[in-house]
Amino acid sequence: MSKKAVIVLSGGLDSTTCMGIAKDAGYELYPITFHYGQRHNREVEQAVKVAEFYGVADHRIVDLDFLKQIGGSALTDEKIDVPETAEEGIPSTYVPARNMIFLSLASAYAEVIGAEAVYTGVSAVDYSGYPDCRPEFIASMESTVNLATKAGVTGARIQIATPLIDKTKKETIEWGLTLGVPYELTTSCYNGLEEACGVCDSCQLRLKGFREAGSEDPIIYR
Amino acid sequence: MSKKAVIVLSGGLDSTTCMGIAKDAGYELYPITFHYGQRHNREVEQAVKVAEFYGVADHRIVDLDFLKQIGGSALTDEKIDVPETAEEGIPSTYVPARNMIFLSLASAYAEVIGAEAVYTGVSAVDYSGYPDCRPEFIASMESTVNLATKAGVTGARIQIATPLIDKTKKETIEWGLTLGVPYELTTSCYNGLEEACGVCDSCQLRLKGFREAGSEDPIIYR
Repeated sequence: MSKKAVIVLSGGLDSTTCMGIAKDAGYELYPITFHYGQRHNREVEQAVKVAEFYGVADHRIVDLDFLKQIGGSALTDEKIDVPETAEEGIPSTYVPARNMIFLSLASAYAEVIGAEAVYTGVSAVDYSGYPDCRPEFIASMESTVNLATKAGVTGARIQIATPLIDKTKKETIEWGLTLGVPYELTTSCYNGLEEACGVCDSCQLRLKGFREAGSEDPIIYR
Repeated sequence: MSKKAVIVLSGGLDSTTCMGIAKDAGYELYPITFHYGQRHNREVEQAVKVAEFYGVADHRIVDLDFLKQIGGSALTDEKIDVPETAEEGIPSTYVPARNMIFLSLASAYAEVIGAEAVYTGVSAVDYSGYPDCRPEFIASMESTVNLATKAGVTGARIQIATPLIDKTKKETIEWGLTLGVPYELTTSCYNGLEEACGVCDSCQLRLKGFREAGSEDPIIYR
Protein backbone atom coordinates (compact mmCIF):
# COMPACT_ATOMS: atom_id res chain seq x y z
CA MET A 1 0.00 0.00 0.00
CA SER A 2 1.38 3.39 -0.93
CA LYS A 3 1.86 6.06 1.69
CA LYS A 4 -0.56 8.96 1.71
CA ALA A 5 -0.17 12.71 2.12
CA VAL A 6 -2.84 15.36 2.52
CA ILE A 7 -1.95 18.53 0.60
CA VAL A 8 -3.47 21.87 1.58
CA LEU A 9 -4.10 23.04 -1.99
CA SER A 10 -5.15 26.61 -2.68
CA GLY A 11 -4.57 26.64 -6.40
CA GLY A 12 -1.68 29.03 -5.86
CA LEU A 13 1.94 28.66 -6.86
CA ASP A 14 3.29 27.36 -3.55
CA SER A 15 0.65 24.75 -2.74
CA THR A 16 0.74 23.47 -6.31
CA THR A 17 4.50 23.10 -6.03
CA CYS A 18 3.83 21.03 -2.89
CA MET A 19 1.73 18.65 -4.98
CA GLY A 20 4.77 18.05 -7.17
CA ILE A 21 7.13 17.70 -4.22
CA ALA A 22 4.90 15.23 -2.35
CA LYS A 23 4.36 13.18 -5.50
CA ASP A 24 8.12 13.14 -6.08
CA ALA A 25 8.54 11.90 -2.47
CA GLY A 26 6.37 8.91 -3.34
CA TYR A 27 3.12 9.96 -1.74
CA GLU A 28 -0.37 9.25 -2.97
CA LEU A 29 -1.90 12.76 -3.06
CA TYR A 30 -5.04 13.75 -1.13
CA PRO A 31 -5.54 17.47 -1.80
CA ILE A 32 -7.90 19.46 0.38
CA THR A 33 -9.05 22.94 -0.65
CA PHE A 34 -10.75 25.47 1.59
CA HIS A 35 -13.40 27.77 0.31
CA TYR A 36 -13.37 30.37 3.01
CA GLY A 37 -15.25 33.19 1.44
CA GLN A 38 -12.34 34.55 -0.51
CA ARG A 39 -13.62 37.40 -2.62
CA HIS A 40 -13.40 35.18 -5.65
CA ASN A 41 -13.86 31.51 -6.48
CA ARG A 42 -10.91 31.50 -8.80
CA GLU A 43 -8.56 29.83 -6.31
CA VAL A 44 -10.95 26.92 -5.90
CA GLU A 45 -11.46 26.58 -9.67
CA GLN A 46 -7.72 26.45 -10.26
CA ALA A 47 -7.22 23.98 -7.40
CA VAL A 48 -9.69 21.65 -9.12
CA LYS A 49 -7.66 21.88 -12.34
CA VAL A 50 -4.42 21.18 -10.50
CA ALA A 51 -5.96 18.15 -8.77
CA GLU A 52 -7.14 16.87 -12.16
CA PHE A 53 -3.66 17.40 -13.61
CA TYR A 54 -2.26 15.11 -10.93
CA GLY A 55 -5.06 12.57 -11.45
CA VAL A 56 -5.96 12.35 -7.78
CA ALA A 57 -8.61 9.88 -6.66
CA ASP A 58 -10.20 12.25 -4.17
CA HIS A 59 -10.14 16.04 -3.85
CA ARG A 60 -11.93 17.47 -0.85
CA ILE A 61 -13.33 20.98 -1.03
CA VAL A 62 -14.35 22.29 2.35
CA ASP A 63 -16.69 25.19 2.86
CA LEU A 64 -15.55 27.49 5.65
CA ASP A 65 -18.02 30.27 5.24
CA PHE A 66 -17.50 31.18 8.87
CA LEU A 67 -14.21 32.88 8.08
CA LYS A 68 -16.09 35.26 5.82
CA GLN A 69 -18.77 35.75 8.48
CA ILE A 70 -16.26 36.86 11.08
CA GLY A 71 -14.33 39.01 8.60
CA GLY A 72 -11.22 40.74 9.83
CA SER A 73 -9.29 40.41 6.57
CA ALA A 74 -9.11 42.22 3.27
CA LEU A 75 -9.31 38.82 1.59
CA THR A 76 -12.68 37.93 3.09
CA ASP A 77 -14.22 41.25 4.08
CA GLU A 78 -15.48 43.49 1.31
CA LYS A 79 -15.31 46.46 3.63
CA ILE A 80 -11.50 46.23 3.77
CA ASP A 81 -9.57 47.15 0.61
CA VAL A 82 -6.81 44.95 -0.75
CA PRO A 83 -3.73 47.16 -0.66
CA GLU A 84 -1.72 47.68 -3.81
CA THR A 85 1.60 48.05 -2.07
CA ALA A 86 3.41 46.09 0.62
CA GLU A 87 2.36 47.04 4.16
CA GLU A 88 4.29 47.41 7.39
CA GLY A 89 3.60 44.85 10.14
CA ILE A 90 0.75 42.39 9.76
CA PRO A 91 -0.90 42.96 6.36
CA SER A 92 -4.63 43.53 5.92
CA THR A 93 -4.70 40.39 3.80
CA TYR A 94 -3.90 38.33 6.90
CA VAL A 95 -6.87 36.00 7.55
CA PRO A 96 -7.23 35.34 11.30
CA ALA A 97 -5.63 32.02 12.26
CA ARG A 98 -6.14 30.71 8.74
CA ASN A 99 -3.26 28.25 8.66
CA MET A 100 -4.13 26.91 12.11
CA ILE A 101 -7.69 26.27 10.96
CA PHE A 102 -6.62 24.71 7.66
CA LEU A 103 -4.02 22.48 9.30
CA SER A 104 -6.46 21.40 12.03
CA LEU A 105 -9.01 20.26 9.47
CA ALA A 106 -6.39 18.74 7.16
CA SER A 107 -4.94 16.79 10.11
CA ALA A 108 -8.36 15.43 11.08
CA TYR A 109 -8.69 14.25 7.48
CA ALA A 110 -5.17 12.78 7.57
CA GLU A 111 -6.06 10.85 10.71
CA VAL A 112 -9.20 9.38 9.15
CA ILE A 113 -7.54 8.27 5.88
CA GLY A 114 -4.31 7.16 7.57
CA ALA A 115 -2.05 9.75 5.92
CA GLU A 116 1.33 10.27 7.52
CA ALA A 117 1.96 13.81 6.31
CA VAL A 118 0.12 17.07 5.74
CA TYR A 119 1.83 19.34 3.23
CA THR A 120 1.44 23.10 3.29
CA GLY A 121 3.17 25.59 1.02
CA VAL A 122 3.95 28.23 3.64
CA SER A 123 7.17 30.16 3.24
CA ALA A 124 8.79 32.09 6.04
CA VAL A 125 10.85 33.98 3.47
CA ASP A 126 7.90 35.48 1.63
CA TYR A 127 5.51 35.50 4.54
CA SER A 128 5.12 39.27 4.51
CA GLY A 129 4.36 39.43 8.21
CA TYR A 130 1.76 36.68 8.50
CA PRO A 131 2.21 35.23 12.01
CA ASP A 132 1.03 31.79 10.92
CA CYS A 133 3.77 31.29 8.34
CA ARG A 134 6.60 31.33 10.87
CA PRO A 135 8.58 28.13 11.55
CA GLU A 136 7.81 28.41 15.29
CA PHE A 137 4.10 28.30 14.49
CA ILE A 138 4.55 25.20 12.32
CA ALA A 139 6.59 23.39 14.99
CA SER A 140 4.00 24.18 17.65
CA MET A 141 1.16 23.15 15.33
CA GLU A 142 2.79 19.79 14.63
CA SER A 143 3.10 19.12 18.36
CA THR A 144 -0.52 20.11 18.91
CA VAL A 145 -1.75 17.92 16.04
CA ASN A 146 0.02 14.93 17.50
CA LEU A 147 -1.51 15.58 20.92
CA ALA A 148 -5.01 16.22 19.54
CA THR A 149 -5.34 13.04 17.52
CA LYS A 150 -5.12 9.31 18.05
CA ALA A 151 -1.49 9.71 17.04
CA GLY A 152 -0.96 11.17 20.51
CA VAL A 153 -1.99 7.86 22.01
CA THR A 154 -0.98 5.27 19.44
CA GLY A 155 2.33 6.83 18.42
CA ALA A 156 1.52 6.99 14.68
CA ARG A 157 2.66 10.54 14.07
CA ILE A 158 1.39 13.02 11.50
CA GLN A 159 4.10 15.22 10.02
CA ILE A 160 3.36 18.83 9.01
CA ALA A 161 5.55 19.03 5.92
CA THR A 162 6.67 22.52 4.88
CA PRO A 163 9.21 21.94 2.11
CA LEU A 164 9.08 25.58 1.02
CA ILE A 165 9.42 27.21 4.43
CA ASP A 166 12.99 28.35 3.82
CA LYS A 167 12.64 28.88 0.08
CA THR A 168 12.39 32.15 -1.82
CA LYS A 169 9.85 32.35 -4.64
CA LYS A 170 12.75 31.94 -7.08
CA GLU A 171 13.89 28.72 -5.40
CA THR A 172 10.33 27.39 -5.21
CA ILE A 173 9.81 27.98 -8.93
CA GLU A 174 13.18 26.46 -9.86
CA TRP A 175 12.33 23.34 -7.82
CA GLY A 176 8.81 23.14 -9.26
CA LEU A 177 10.01 23.46 -12.85
CA THR A 178 12.30 20.43 -12.40
CA LEU A 179 9.22 18.50 -11.21
CA GLY A 180 6.96 19.60 -14.08
CA VAL A 181 4.59 21.54 -11.85
CA PRO A 182 1.77 23.01 -13.99
CA TYR A 183 2.24 26.68 -13.17
CA GLU A 184 -0.07 27.62 -16.03
CA LEU A 185 -2.94 26.30 -13.88
CA THR A 186 -2.08 28.34 -10.78
CA THR A 187 -3.39 31.70 -9.61
CA SER A 188 -1.78 34.20 -7.27
CA CYS A 189 -3.52 37.55 -7.83
CA TYR A 190 -5.33 38.88 -4.75
CA ASN A 191 -7.91 40.43 -7.01
CA GLY A 192 -8.94 37.08 -8.49
CA LEU A 193 -9.18 38.34 -12.02
CA GLU A 194 -9.01 35.87 -14.88
CA GLU A 195 -6.07 37.91 -16.12
CA ALA A 196 -3.80 38.66 -13.17
CA CYS A 197 -3.43 42.34 -12.24
CA GLY A 198 0.37 42.26 -12.02
CA VAL A 199 0.22 45.05 -9.45
CA CYS A 200 -0.81 43.56 -6.10
CA ASP A 201 1.72 42.33 -3.57
CA SER A 202 1.12 38.73 -4.55
CA CYS A 203 1.46 39.29 -8.32
CA GLN A 204 4.66 41.28 -7.80
CA LEU A 205 6.21 38.53 -5.67
CA ARG A 206 5.33 35.93 -8.27
CA LEU A 207 6.63 37.93 -11.23
CA LYS A 208 9.88 38.64 -9.42
CA GLY A 209 10.26 34.91 -8.68
CA PHE A 210 9.89 33.87 -12.30
CA ARG A 211 12.21 36.64 -13.40
CA GLU A 212 14.91 35.58 -10.94
CA ALA A 213 14.44 31.93 -11.90
CA GLY A 214 15.11 32.95 -15.50
CA SER A 215 11.76 31.61 -16.62
CA GLU A 216 8.59 33.11 -18.03
CA ASP A 217 5.41 33.06 -15.98
CA PRO A 218 2.93 31.07 -18.13
CA ILE A 219 -0.21 32.78 -16.80
CA ILE A 220 -1.81 35.77 -18.49
CA TYR A 221 -1.46 39.30 -17.13
CA ARG A 222 -3.77 42.06 -18.19
CA MET B 1 -15.47 48.39 27.98
CA SER B 2 -16.14 44.95 29.43
CA LYS B 3 -13.78 42.11 28.70
CA LYS B 4 -14.95 39.44 26.29
CA ALA B 5 -14.75 35.66 26.28
CA VAL B 6 -15.64 33.23 23.51
CA ILE B 7 -17.35 30.11 24.90
CA VAL B 8 -17.33 26.87 22.92
CA LEU B 9 -20.95 25.97 23.67
CA SER B 10 -22.29 22.55 22.76
CA GLY B 11 -25.48 22.70 24.76
CA GLY B 12 -24.10 20.03 27.05
CA LEU B 13 -23.59 20.15 30.78
CA ASP B 14 -19.92 21.12 30.83
CA SER B 15 -19.96 23.91 28.24
CA THR B 16 -23.11 25.37 29.78
CA THR B 17 -21.36 25.39 33.14
CA CYS B 18 -18.55 27.33 31.42
CA MET B 19 -21.08 30.00 30.45
CA GLY B 20 -21.87 30.45 34.14
CA ILE B 21 -18.21 30.42 35.16
CA ALA B 22 -17.13 32.97 32.54
CA LYS B 23 -20.07 35.22 33.39
CA ASP B 24 -19.14 34.98 37.07
CA ALA B 25 -15.57 35.95 36.13
CA GLY B 26 -16.93 39.18 34.65
CA TYR B 27 -16.79 38.34 30.96
CA GLU B 28 -19.20 39.41 28.28
CA LEU B 29 -20.18 36.06 26.71
CA TYR B 30 -19.70 35.25 23.02
CA PRO B 31 -20.83 31.65 22.60
CA ILE B 32 -19.91 29.72 19.46
CA THR B 33 -21.61 26.44 18.61
CA PHE B 34 -20.42 23.94 16.04
CA HIS B 35 -22.82 21.94 13.97
CA TYR B 36 -20.54 19.20 12.80
CA GLY B 37 -22.93 16.62 11.53
CA GLN B 38 -23.74 15.14 14.88
CA ARG B 39 -26.44 12.55 14.36
CA HIS B 40 -28.93 14.91 15.86
CA ASN B 41 -29.53 18.66 15.97
CA ARG B 42 -30.56 18.54 19.59
CA GLU B 43 -27.22 19.86 20.86
CA VAL B 44 -27.51 22.95 18.69
CA GLU B 45 -31.15 23.54 19.71
CA GLN B 46 -30.24 23.37 23.38
CA ALA B 47 -27.20 25.63 22.85
CA VAL B 48 -29.53 28.25 21.38
CA LYS B 49 -31.73 28.03 24.50
CA VAL B 50 -28.72 28.34 26.80
CA ALA B 51 -27.47 31.39 24.89
CA GLU B 52 -30.93 32.94 25.19
CA PHE B 53 -30.97 32.21 28.92
CA TYR B 54 -27.78 34.21 29.30
CA GLY B 55 -29.11 37.00 27.10
CA VAL B 56 -26.06 37.09 24.83
CA ALA B 57 -25.84 39.73 22.12
CA ASP B 58 -24.35 37.37 19.53
CA HIS B 59 -24.38 33.57 19.25
CA ARG B 60 -22.42 32.14 16.34
CA ILE B 61 -23.44 28.78 14.94
CA VAL B 62 -20.85 27.35 12.61
CA ASP B 63 -21.53 24.63 10.09
CA LEU B 64 -18.72 22.08 9.92
CA ASP B 65 -20.29 19.56 7.66
CA PHE B 66 -16.85 18.40 6.65
CA LEU B 67 -16.45 16.45 9.89
CA LYS B 68 -19.45 14.38 8.91
CA GLN B 69 -18.11 13.97 5.38
CA ILE B 70 -14.83 12.50 6.60
CA GLY B 71 -16.56 10.34 9.23
CA GLY B 72 -14.37 8.27 11.49
CA SER B 73 -16.59 8.60 14.55
CA ALA B 74 -19.71 6.96 15.92
CA LEU B 75 -21.05 10.46 16.58
CA THR B 76 -20.89 11.54 12.95
CA ASP B 77 -20.88 8.31 10.95
CA GLU B 78 -24.11 6.38 10.78
CA LYS B 79 -22.19 3.24 9.86
CA ILE B 80 -20.54 3.15 13.30
CA ASP B 81 -22.77 2.23 16.26
CA VAL B 82 -22.76 4.28 19.45
CA PRO B 83 -21.69 1.79 22.12
CA GLU B 84 -23.87 1.29 25.17
CA THR B 85 -21.02 0.54 27.53
CA ALA B 86 -17.68 2.17 28.24
CA GLU B 87 -14.91 1.14 25.84
CA GLU B 88 -11.23 0.38 26.31
CA GLY B 89 -8.74 2.83 24.77
CA ILE B 90 -9.97 5.57 22.43
CA PRO B 91 -13.78 5.36 22.23
CA SER B 92 -15.66 5.12 18.92
CA THR B 93 -17.37 8.39 19.87
CA TYR B 94 -14.03 10.20 19.49
CA VAL B 95 -14.38 12.74 16.66
CA PRO B 96 -11.02 13.23 14.89
CA ALA B 97 -9.24 16.33 16.19
CA ARG B 98 -12.56 17.89 17.19
CA ASN B 99 -11.30 20.09 19.98
CA MET B 100 -8.34 21.31 17.93
CA ILE B 101 -10.72 22.31 15.14
CA PHE B 102 -13.19 23.97 17.49
CA LEU B 103 -10.49 25.86 19.37
CA SER B 104 -8.84 26.99 16.13
CA LEU B 105 -12.07 28.50 14.85
CA ALA B 106 -13.04 29.91 18.25
CA SER B 107 -9.60 31.55 18.54
CA ALA B 108 -9.91 33.15 15.11
CA TYR B 109 -13.24 34.57 16.27
CA ALA B 110 -11.67 35.71 19.56
CA GLU B 111 -8.97 37.51 17.62
CA VAL B 112 -11.47 39.36 15.44
CA ILE B 113 -13.73 40.50 18.30
CA GLY B 114 -10.84 41.20 20.66
CA ALA B 115 -11.71 38.53 23.24
CA GLU B 116 -8.99 37.65 25.69
CA ALA B 117 -10.17 34.13 26.54
CA VAL B 118 -11.70 31.08 24.87
CA TYR B 119 -13.54 28.82 27.30
CA THR B 120 -13.96 25.12 26.68
CA GLY B 121 -15.61 22.63 29.02
CA VAL B 122 -13.13 19.77 28.54
CA SER B 123 -12.43 17.60 31.54
CA ALA B 124 -9.40 15.37 31.83
CA VAL B 125 -11.13 13.45 34.61
CA ASP B 126 -14.08 12.30 32.55
CA TYR B 127 -12.33 12.32 29.23
CA SER B 128 -12.83 8.60 28.67
CA GLY B 129 -9.72 8.30 26.55
CA TYR B 130 -10.22 11.25 24.19
CA PRO B 131 -6.70 12.45 23.30
CA ASP B 132 -7.87 16.04 22.83
CA CYS B 133 -9.14 16.46 26.39
CA ARG B 134 -5.73 16.04 28.03
CA PRO B 135 -4.06 19.00 29.75
CA GLU B 136 -0.95 18.57 27.58
CA PHE B 137 -3.10 19.05 24.48
CA ILE B 138 -4.66 22.23 25.90
CA ALA B 139 -1.26 23.68 26.85
CA SER B 140 0.11 22.96 23.39
CA MET B 141 -3.02 24.37 21.74
CA GLU B 142 -2.74 27.60 23.70
CA SER B 143 0.87 28.03 22.57
CA THR B 144 -0.10 27.34 18.98
CA VAL B 145 -3.02 29.80 19.09
CA ASN B 146 -0.73 32.53 20.31
CA LEU B 147 1.76 31.83 17.54
CA ALA B 148 -0.91 31.57 14.83
CA THR B 149 -2.62 34.87 15.49
CA LYS B 150 -1.71 38.52 15.70
CA ALA B 151 -1.29 37.86 19.41
CA GLY B 152 1.96 36.15 18.46
CA VAL B 153 3.24 39.44 17.12
CA THR B 154 1.48 42.09 19.20
CA GLY B 155 1.72 40.29 22.55
CA ALA B 156 -2.05 40.44 23.26
CA ARG B 157 -2.49 36.85 24.33
CA ILE B 158 -5.55 34.65 24.02
CA GLN B 159 -6.05 32.31 26.97
CA ILE B 160 -7.58 28.86 26.47
CA ALA B 161 -9.60 28.63 29.69
CA THR B 162 -10.44 25.14 30.91
CA PRO B 163 -11.95 25.65 34.37
CA LEU B 164 -13.32 22.10 34.44
CA ILE B 165 -10.20 20.26 33.33
CA ASP B 166 -9.48 18.83 36.80
CA LYS B 167 -13.11 18.56 37.90
CA THR B 168 -15.23 15.44 38.23
CA LYS B 169 -18.81 15.63 36.99
CA LYS B 170 -19.92 15.91 40.61
CA GLU B 171 -17.66 18.92 41.21
CA THR B 172 -18.74 20.56 37.94
CA ILE B 173 -22.41 20.22 38.87
CA GLU B 174 -21.83 21.49 42.40
CA TRP B 175 -20.03 24.55 41.01
CA GLY B 176 -22.69 25.15 38.35
CA LEU B 177 -25.53 24.93 40.84
CA THR B 178 -23.98 27.72 42.95
CA LEU B 179 -23.89 29.84 39.76
CA GLY B 180 -27.49 29.12 38.76
CA VAL B 181 -26.52 27.27 35.59
CA PRO B 182 -29.71 26.19 33.75
CA TYR B 183 -29.10 22.44 33.64
CA GLU B 184 -32.70 21.87 32.57
CA LEU B 185 -31.70 23.32 29.17
CA THR B 186 -28.71 21.04 28.64
CA THR B 187 -28.44 17.74 26.79
CA SER B 188 -25.89 14.99 27.21
CA CYS B 189 -27.37 11.83 25.64
CA TYR B 190 -25.34 10.46 22.72
CA ASN B 191 -28.59 9.31 21.12
CA GLY B 192 -30.02 12.82 20.95
CA LEU B 193 -33.49 11.78 22.03
CA GLU B 194 -35.85 14.38 23.45
CA GLU B 195 -36.02 12.17 26.51
CA ALA B 196 -32.49 11.07 27.41
CA CYS B 197 -31.79 7.32 27.15
CA GLY B 198 -30.17 7.04 30.57
CA VAL B 199 -28.12 4.12 29.27
CA CYS B 200 -25.29 5.50 27.10
CA ASP B 201 -21.89 6.35 28.53
CA SER B 202 -22.69 10.05 28.56
CA CYS B 203 -26.06 9.68 30.32
CA GLN B 204 -24.54 7.41 32.94
CA LEU B 205 -21.75 9.87 33.68
CA ARG B 206 -24.25 12.69 34.04
CA LEU B 207 -26.66 10.75 36.27
CA LYS B 208 -23.79 9.65 38.51
CA GLY B 209 -22.63 13.29 38.77
CA PHE B 210 -26.01 14.57 39.92
CA ARG B 211 -26.38 11.64 42.32
CA GLU B 212 -22.97 12.33 43.89
CA ALA B 213 -23.72 16.06 44.06
CA GLY B 214 -26.86 15.22 46.02
CA SER B 215 -29.07 16.90 43.44
CA GLU B 216 -31.68 15.76 40.98
CA ASP B 217 -31.04 15.98 37.26
CA PRO B 218 -33.79 18.30 35.96
CA ILE B 219 -33.92 16.81 32.44
CA ILE B 220 -36.36 14.05 31.47
CA TYR B 221 -35.27 10.44 31.03
CA ARG B 222 -37.38 7.95 29.18
